Amino acid sequence: MPKILRINTRTREYRLEDMGPYLGLGGRALTSRLVLNEVPATCHPLSKENKLVIATGILSGTRAASSGRISVGAKSPLTLGIKEANSGGQFSQKMAKMDIIGIVLEDQPEADAPLVTIAITKDGIAFHDASQFTFTRTYATAEALQKQFGDKSAAMLIGPAGETLRQSASIQFTDTKYRPARAAGRGGMGAVMGSKRVKAIVVDDTGAAGVTYADDEAFKTASKRWAEILRGHAVTGQGLPGYGTAILVNVINEAGALPTKNFRDGRFQWAADVSGEKMTELMEKRGGKVREGCHTGCAIQCSQTFVDEKGKYLTSGLEYETVWALGPNSMIKEIDEIAKMDHICDDIGLDTIEMGNTVAVAMDGGLLPWGDAKAAQELLNRVADPKDPLGRIVGNGTAFMAEAYGVTRVPVVKRQALPAYDPRAVKGVGVTYATTPMGADHTAGYAVCQNVLKCGGDVNPHNKAGQVETSKALQIATAAIDASGLCLFVAFAVLDTPDGMQTICDMITARTGQKTTPDDVAALGTSILKDEYEFNRRAGFSAADDQLPDFFKEPLAPHNVSWDFTVEELQGAKA
Amino acid sequence: MPKILRINTRTREYRLEDMGPYLGLGGRALTSRLVLNEVPATCHPLSKENKLVIATGILSGTRAASSGRISVGAKSPLTLGIKEANSGGQFSQKMAKMDIIGIVLEDQPEADAPLVTIAITKDGIAFHDASQFTFTRTYATAEALQKQFGDKSAAMLIGPAGETLRQSASIQFTDTKYRPARAAGRGGMGAVMGSKRVKAIVVDDTGAAGVTYADDEAFKTASKRWAEILRGHAVTGQGLPGYGTAILVNVINEAGALPTKNFRDGRFQWAADVSGEKMTELMEKRGGKVREGCHTGCAIQCSQTFVDEKGKYLTSGLEYETVWALGPNSMIKEIDEIAKMDHICDDIGLDTIEMGNTVAVAMDGGLLPWGDAKAAQELLNRVADPKDPLGRIVGNGTAFMAEAYGVTRVPVVKRQALPAYDPRAVKGVGVTYATTPMGADHTAGYAVCQNVLKCGGDVNPHNKAGQVETSKALQIATAAIDASGLCLFVAFAVLDTPDGMQTICDMITARTGQKTTPDDVAALGTSILKDEYEFNRRAGFSAADDQLPDFFKEPLAPHNVSWDFTVEELQGAKA
Repeated sequence: MPKILRINTRTREYRLEDMGPYLGLGGRALTSRLVLNEVPATCHPLSKENKLVIATGILSGTRAASSGRISVGAKSPLTLGIKEANSGGQFSQKMAKMDIIGIVLEDQPEADAPLVTIAITKDGIAFHDASQFTFTRTYATAEALQKQFGDKSAAMLIGPAGETLRQSASIQFTDTKYRPARAAGRGGMGAVMGSKRVKAIVVDDTGAAGVTYADDEAFKTASKRWAEILRGHAVTGQGLPGYGTAILVNVINEAGALPTKNFRDGRFQWAADVSGEKMTELMEKRGGKVREGCHTGCAIQCSQTFVDEKGKYLTSGLEYETVWALGPNSMIKEIDEIAKMDHICDDIGLDTIEMGNTVAVAMDGGLLPWGDAKAAQELLNRVADPKDPLGRIVGNGTAFMAEAYGVTRVPVVKRQALPAYDPRAVKGVGVTYATTPMGADHTAGYAVCQNVLKCGGDVNPHNKAGQVETSKALQIATAAIDASGLCLFVAFAVLDTPDGMQTICDMITARTGQKTTPDDVAALGTSILKDEYEFNRRAGFSAADDQLPDFFKEPLAPHNVSWDFTVEELQGAKA
Repeated sequence: MPKILRINTRTREYRLEDMGPYLGLGGRALTSRLVLNEVPATCHPLSKENKLVIATGILSGTRAASSGRISVGAKSPLTLGIKEANSGGQFSQKMAKMDIIGIVLEDQPEADAPLVTIAITKDGIAFHDASQFTFTRTYATAEALQKQFGDKSAAMLIGPAGETLRQSASIQFTDTKYRPARAAGRGGMGAVMGSKRVKAIVVDDTGAAGVTYADDEAFKTASKRWAEILRGHAVTGQGLPGYGTAILVNVINEAGALPTKNFRDGRFQWAADVSGEKMTELMEKRGGKVREGCHTGCAIQCSQTFVDEKGKYLTSGLEYETVWALGPNSMIKEIDEIAKMDHICDDIGLDTIEMGNTVAVAMDGGLLPWGDAKAAQELLNRVADPKDPLGRIVGNGTAFMAEAYGVTRVPVVKRQALPAYDPRAVKGVGVTYATTPMGADHTAGYAVCQNVLKCGGDVNPHNKAGQVETSKALQIATAAIDASGLCLFVAFAVLDTPDGMQTICDMITARTGQKTTPDDVAALGTSILKDEYEFNRRAGFSAADDQLPDFFKEPLAPHNVSWDFTVEELQGAKA
């Protein structure tokens, strides 16, 4: 039976517990329920009362394709609401194979206590001094951790941003090559980890028994069908493997929904130069690598190794949202420079979406020129210096930067910056930005599917009709997927495949022995959202917080669309 | 009939309007109603949709003693809720004598438009280029304005903090000696003025008809009695004139409620060195001046001219709350250094209460040593440099500083810093901090009266019993006083004098011709609060925002008292 590992970061006591009231929950279902139950909603998110919850999904560690996602939850220092940030990487599968479904970091040592690495191996839990990594970037730290703990281990770690408690600090997860290139990026989870003085957690599943199945044969059958479904769909079987998520650059630009110059335009003149097609062309020419999984056992393989002209490593896991945030939104058009910025963010431990918006807002405030990649890189690098006040501003994200420089065009919801889809031209995802308890987040209900990609339905992206219902259904389904450990990208295939959802249910049933139906999955998604609403209500959120900033009432070129939902209409999207 | 002067700061059009729906309202009643009616609650406070409303009270400009207060209202850039900040100075009486009860600054020019001074004289409204005052401090600016517009004028103006849109920017008002030493300090009203590119408003009432009275004789009788009441009470007749508001240093320290070292202790070892008694002793020895009114016609005269050892001017209007904020709360014990810090705040245009808390939080974050006055002065001075990122952090106040440096001990409610009374040892004022729509504000319901000074009742400051009721009644009465233009300090005398409230009613009746009873006054106070609650509700506030930070659950020495109100109990204090 999966266990929860509770670690007191002050006393260094730990215990492996039965799941008790959390039995049957995984991933986001577990992080959100535990945060609701155990974290006082009005506590300071960097105080000892907050808890950092790391949870694998119900299907993580199994043979199910693309099931290696991990959820990180806490009260967010950025939004001050509940947060689940989701990441790929090797950590989840190894943790699940050790039969640990949740790790809970509790309490905190003194603010100037030495950093620590927590190692989880067959020998138990060990605390290693990590003071030598103080303010060390994540790539150098990961390299040292790999040497220290071996190639069989996987790590989750923070960079200088997490140590200095920046509200945009990510937790980076190592990938199949021990590169800390996968991130639980959003909402400052790295700052919560930093507030507990934990630099890294390392897990090595050598000698672990692996996950068990209630019905091994049934699982084999279902997981085989599952792999077929993923490989058979155009998006998960061809588009994403061939071009990564950046295949969306041209698609979203064509839709007039690529936010340009801090959300002033829906098209970017140089979109083709930063597109997935261009990236693939360059990688093939330069000797990079297209088609990598962020974790072993992924059937989609949307990651990559991106290199410069001389074949030198620049970054990997360069996603569409990152390309957009650090590119078109700041008028930066050189893909190599964008790749370097992605690397800087990963290396310092910063959320790329938040940082792209922060740079654009800083440009709006006159701090650096539009389109100046070198100046933007320099600005991001300042976050690594704990003594630099401007670095502290940058590291706190978009709303904070705007307040520091008096910028009134601030694309945030619940203080979290908007992702790569202009909500005026993709209204369904705008409804999600406004109403998800997470703050502006495309992954919480990716209505780009029905609005633009025409997966799972066809809703006119410029009209209000059908958007609230679409977003609501997606938010419920997404919450459930985030509990399973499956990658959200499976949704493209599931939405278009009649037996898609049933196959997921079959896998869960065969894994747990609990018969699970599509109705159960929907009920789970709803209950997760209700937990999250309740936490936010206690923390002081109200319907007025479920809105986009006023400036989205301005019309957006080229389609001359504007944001026109009322507070009351938006409430309809809540589960 | 009093008029409202509306000025479009973009087009420079203006018009004098009848009061229309605002008929009968003055001061805070006018600012709050107008902001509720005309400012979208979710707008960005620094956008063109916000309005800055400057309103004199119903009794301002009359012969009533101590009636020269002024209200400044807007959506606050600090709290993001509704705000009324109240100030003395010469502006209110002169404005009232020109029969203008409200000035509304609307819209805004481009962010880089030249600054302007708006002059209101018998010749009409004129816009004067003020670009020569860009980033000029208020004392130098006021000196130039006095030369430009003459001794008969009075000014309200902003310093560099307002121009750079700092969330703690004050609006400074000139006193009887044209010193910009009086402040509408709280909630960043100076930033709203700065966002409209207005450096100063100057009013010269030369040639104005003055206020009219519905019953001149009745007003004479009532106002004579009014002056007797103020002069006859120990606090308004002796304590405040003799020692200024800093007479409270020893009183509150004795009560164990003087917040020390960022609210860690209730007593300050060096309280006597920074007391009102000490200040008076020094002023008498050095040739300063005790007993000055902040405006002509004040019977209380709690202001002063504070000079250094050589008799050189340091500051004036050095209040108890300022002494505390810039002194004991940061462990600074030299009164001359505190006076210099007050001057720096006035000169840059910063709220002293917010700045004192900001300095203490910066000390908690290790940015400068506890008790280091020179370092604190240097920190404050950085706000005057628009290119200094740390200055921008400081100028945004306590919560912002805490977020920048990861400090979790953050004494704010609704992001506004707490004033000079520890809420654990003066629970009544804690209830006010938590529940007033203004954010933590002692003036909104000064339960220190009943809790410590034993004016108007006797409530045990350490017990919960009676506090909610006391705070509620005071919040209602205060809102009404803030609509009258009377100084809040009249409350000491009014609470202890049987015909105190009736005398105020008699003056209002004789001034307006509208028969006004104590019940009418209470109803007015309630309606003001309800306007403010409604704005905040629309802006997204909920009951969860009506609380103190969690750290006040810690016991406070020397009385070992802690904060123990529930959310539900606190809601009882709302009108």
